[in-house]
Amino acid sequence: MTTLRFALTPGEPAGIGPDLCLLLARNAQPHALIAVASLDLLERRASELGVDIRLIAIDPDALPDAPAPAGSLYVWDTPLRAPAYPGKLDPRNADYVLETLTRAGQGCLDGHFAGMITAPVHKGVINEAGIAFSGHTEFLADLTATRQVVMMLATRGLRVALVTTHLPLKDVPAAITPERLQRVSRILHTDLVEKFGIPRPRILVCGLNPHAGEGGHLGREELEIIEPTLEGLRAEGLNLVGPLPADTLFTPKHLEHCDAVLAMYHDQGLPVLKYKGFGAAVNVTLGLPIIRTSVDHGTALDLAGTGDIDCGSLEVALETAYQMAGSRG
Amino acid sequence: MTTLRFALTPGEPAGIGPDLCLLLARNAQPHALIAVASLDLLERRASELGVDIRLIAIDPDALPDAPAPAGSLYVWDTPLRAPAYPGKLDPRNADYVLETLTRAGQGCLDGHFAGMITAPVHKGVINEAGIAFSGHTEFLADLTATRQVVMMLATRGLRVALVTTHLPLKDVPAAITPERLQRVSRILHTDLVEKFGIPRPRILVCGLNPHAGEGGHLGREELEIIEPTLEGLRAEGLNLVGPLPADTLFTPKHLEHCDAVLAMYHDQGLPVLKYKGFGAAVNVTLGLPIIRTSVDHGTALDLAGTGDIDCGSLEVALETAYQMAGSRG
Repeated sequence: MTTLRFALTPGEPAGIGPDLCLLLARNAQPHALIAVASLDLLERRASELGVDIRLIAIDPDALPDAPAPAGSLYVWDTPLRAPAYPGKLDPRNADYVLETLTRAGQGCLDGHFAGMITAPVHKGVINEAGIAFSGHTEFLADLTATRQVVMMLATRGLRVALVTTHLPLKDVPAAITPERLQRVSRILHTDLVEKFGIPRPRILVCGLNPHAGEGGHLGREELEIIEPTLEGLRAEGLNLVGPLPADTLFTPKHLEHCDAVLAMYHDQGLPVLKYKGFGAAVNVTLGLPIIRTSVDHGTALDLAGTGDIDCGSLEVALETAYQMAGSRG
Repeated sequence: MTTLRFALTPGEPAGIGPDLCLLLARNAQPHALIAVASLDLLERRASELGVDIRLIAIDPDALPDAPAPAGSLYVWDTPLRAPAYPGKLDPRNADYVLETLTRAGQGCLDGHFAGMITAPVHKGVINEAGIAFSGHTEFLADLTATRQVVMMLATRGLRVALVTTHLPLKDVPAAITPERLQRVSRILHTDLVEKFGIPRPRILVCGLNPHAGEGGHLGREELEIIEPTLEGLRAEGLNLVGPLPADTLFTPKHLEHCDAVLAMYHDQGLPVLKYKGFGAAVNVTLGLPIIRTSVDHGTALDLAGTGDIDCGSLEVALETAYQMAGSRG
């Protein structure tokens, strides 16, 4: 196996992101993994957690090529704007959080990293700082000048991609346009082929309305938008099944022979995925020119600094990024 | 145990409802169970399935009090309006389907039945017949002059009730009013106490928007409607937790100490429940003056007459109705 280099962003400094990165560093990684974070923050959090991790400050102009040994972590030092305490959000650190994402993302674009893995950020505090921010996914789309990205969550045996993501529910129906559905479906198909190595992915598509509209009796978007759009995409060679009712699609009979589910909106697809995969699910951004995976959970402010946390999702996020980079060749 | 009397409606005659009732009748029931259906339909379907069930036509003015023996089924003969063939919907039979529901529901209101259990109907074909019909739940609310009913699905370890049910998604946000949320919450609380024997039910409430609105950044209904309404209901003594994000609520940490989840709409709550409980989930209508349970699946037209079906959900629907009637005393 070729050794590659990946960026890891611990995200919100008051949350469990720094803790997860430190606990993870107890074990060796197969690749060179570089935390883009405040060295000072990581030092203090390690001491609060009582873990003995050697932090190795790296020079961004001379990035390491070999994995760090077990018990150590490479750090691209990125200074905090204000002191960070576990559980205490401070809008002054919003710029810090975004700088870590920018460094990691730009490093991927420049070919310095094979991919980036992100721990949770806190959207609320970034918005409080006066910065419009609706999530990692949207931020990285802007950074990489990508018109359309697709959020996909995955766990063992199930992948769920979303047509719309962080939109108020009232804005969802108008956002389900033929153009968006086409773009999202093509990206999902292409990335399953190119980044996951699945030759002819079979995708189950949810309806928008309950019972997928039940022939128009419970909404007409399936008849007027979704069905004709899927028909056109099938003619391009995409293997799309649906639209199917979301409450019968997520059952063994349907999921058995499928590579991904395409849900129309956040709370239609993610509750099942997180129920099935809790503690071992990963968030993958498709459509970017870079590889990016993330944990599937939030900042868990109340657990920061306690050590009472589970690294399962971050481990799966790392493994998935490594596999995707490997499939890409 | 006191022996009670229940009505069973096989629903759509072209679907698997008649088949389920016949297969179920191979085993004895603890109560007198009366199928409200066409005797002719059941005779022909039994012959198609190759099952030997003795159909006992009953006199509605002299209803039986003892359970029918294994291998037999009481039938309150209700004639079809047109011949019924497995898999072939016929709008002419819409009136037949509704008559079976009316007989069973009115029989409950009149005290002849302790409850009713329903197999699936096909909403589309009833609407095609020119009759506005959005589901069993709404039909029985009208029949019993109940202003507000609540649809709840249950399986082992999880109950999910819905604030809105069979509405196009675009109409959901406007339907989440303080009045509706109050009525639904009170009915859910009261029925968990009175029909399920739970002294102080703990209910987890979903937000409407992704991440429960994330402090207003992803929608304001949580701040403006849901939170203040829940606060008022708590002052009445209801034990309501939330609003919580739907994609983190359905995880073991949250579900462990909860008696029911209240979801804002159909596809937010039911995919998880059906994923978890497929083949063994039951639909319960709360708020009615009668006890009504139902299977959680559809008519499965392609399987009617084949015998390749699973009675699991109907068995759970029967058990639940029996238990509810027992808790009621």
